[in-house]
Amino acid sequence: MKRIKCELMYDGSRFSGYQSQPKDRTVQQEVERALWKIHKKTPIKTQASGRTDAGVHAMGQIIHFDTPIEMPADRWARALNGVLPDDISVKRTEEVPETFHARYSVTGKEYRYRIYRTPYRDPFRTVHAYHYPYPLDVERMKRAAAHLLGEHDFTSFCSTKTDKENKVRTVTDISFLEQGDDLEIRFSGTGFLYNMVRIITGTLIKVGNGRLEPDEVAHILAARDRNCAAQTAPAEGLYLWSVHYD
Amino acid sequence: MKRIKCELMYDGSRFSGYQSQPKDRTVQQEVERALWKIHKKTPIKTQASGRTDAGVHAMGQIIHFDTPIEMPADRWARALNGVLPDDISVKRTEEVPETFHARYSVTGKEYRYRIYRTPYRDPFRTVHAYHYPYPLDVERMKRAAAHLLGEHDFTSFCSTKTDKENKVRTVTDISFLEQGDDLEIRFSGTGFLYNMVRIITGTLIKVGNGRLEPDEVAHILAARDRNCAAQTAPAEGLYLWSVHYD
Repeated sequence: MKRIKCELMYDGSRFSGYQSQPKDRTVQQEVERALWKIHKKTPIKTQASGRTDAGVHAMGQIIHFDTPIEMPADRWARALNGVLPDDISVKRTEEVPETFHARYSVTGKEYRYRIYRTPYRDPFRTVHAYHYPYPLDVERMKRAAAHLLGEHDFTSFCSTKTDKENKVRTVTDISFLEQGDDLEIRFSGTGFLYNMVRIITGTLIKVGNGRLEPDEVAHILAARDRNCAAQTAPAEGLYLWSVHYD
Repeated sequence: MKRIKCELMYDGSRFSGYQSQPKDRTVQQEVERALWKIHKKTPIKTQASGRTDAGVHAMGQIIHFDTPIEMPADRWARALNGVLPDDISVKRTEEVPETFHARYSVTGKEYRYRIYRTPYRDPFRTVHAYHYPYPLDVERMKRAAAHLLGEHDFTSFCSTKTDKENKVRTVTDISFLEQGDDLEIRFSGTGFLYNMVRIITGTLIKVGNGRLEPDEVAHILAARDRNCAAQTAPAEGLYLWSVHYD
């Protein structure tokens, strides 16, 4: 058996998230269906770095699977792209040692959240970025974001639907890229809780729009209460950008 | 009555083209449905600068309509955006004199054709650009394009399904923008025949790929025979970029 590490891109707009579900269309289900075809109807299980929610996109999701097929590792990308649907692509495949695990070996992740602020909706971005046609003071957002850097208990910024006990995570960087009407917020860290990037983004938007003071973010963090943070920002703006391993 | 000129953007991927048809979903039908709602169920006819085919996009399609409603002309954009579906947006509205006609007053148009050449399909661009993962020599394409500039009979580059008698048009510019894996070809002219930009693009791609010599394009043009030119490039790469009036 060989272990293959695989980097995926997907447009999340027509998926009910990453993880297989009995009813709805998911990324995992499509990838495992493609592997099943290549393996002549033998089921092959995949492991991902983590789930993404319905509507959330990926530029660099990482998965692994074990295969008995002998094939140069880089040929797997072409083989999978030949059978995957249009909204999933494999960017890269490589052979990895058995000690590699797409989820347990993760040392860090980057997410990006895309906002666009044209007065009218952009039909080409409607499911690929969040349309927010109101003023945003990015300097205020930066001051607010500074309170979140480092190791903290992020209970206030985690969906109550989580099954994780330990809410301590380390955020290593939050940066802002403005280009014309576009604003991209980039989040790097050792790991992120359920809805954490979207709740932080929703809170930063509230600061940018003047409805919350930048320093109040420190109090929200200290409160360890989801009700203190702002609304979860919509899924369509979020991209799992890259996953890091040692 | 006031005449309103209106600049539209649309993602063509879920439309069977611009022009109303009895069965399928079209842009004109959606725009007229929006106007019908705003006019309390009075039908309002629109005139466009021209049709676009199924799957073809627009960044700046121009239409006009006449309305009895008294409202500042720039407010029409917001009113229409409030009732239009997600894949159509109004960028700008203004009042124009009765002598203006979206189709008959046109003095020029720009189309852009987008190609991307990553080895793997890009799920985010699958319906918004043409995936062509093969070599393209852009210098050869430029030499071929030079033969098409100026006033010519473009019969060789026009679909035989056209109902136009006169095939003489003037192409004022064909330029090439390369950025990494992206190639955009920009076409400006006084007017374009049915499928003309897509047939020229298909022919330029054949030159870029080495299967046709740049100077053969002059012979294809002179032949006035659609069978001499290459395959029509796919709709998903084409954008009606702007329409010009005096």
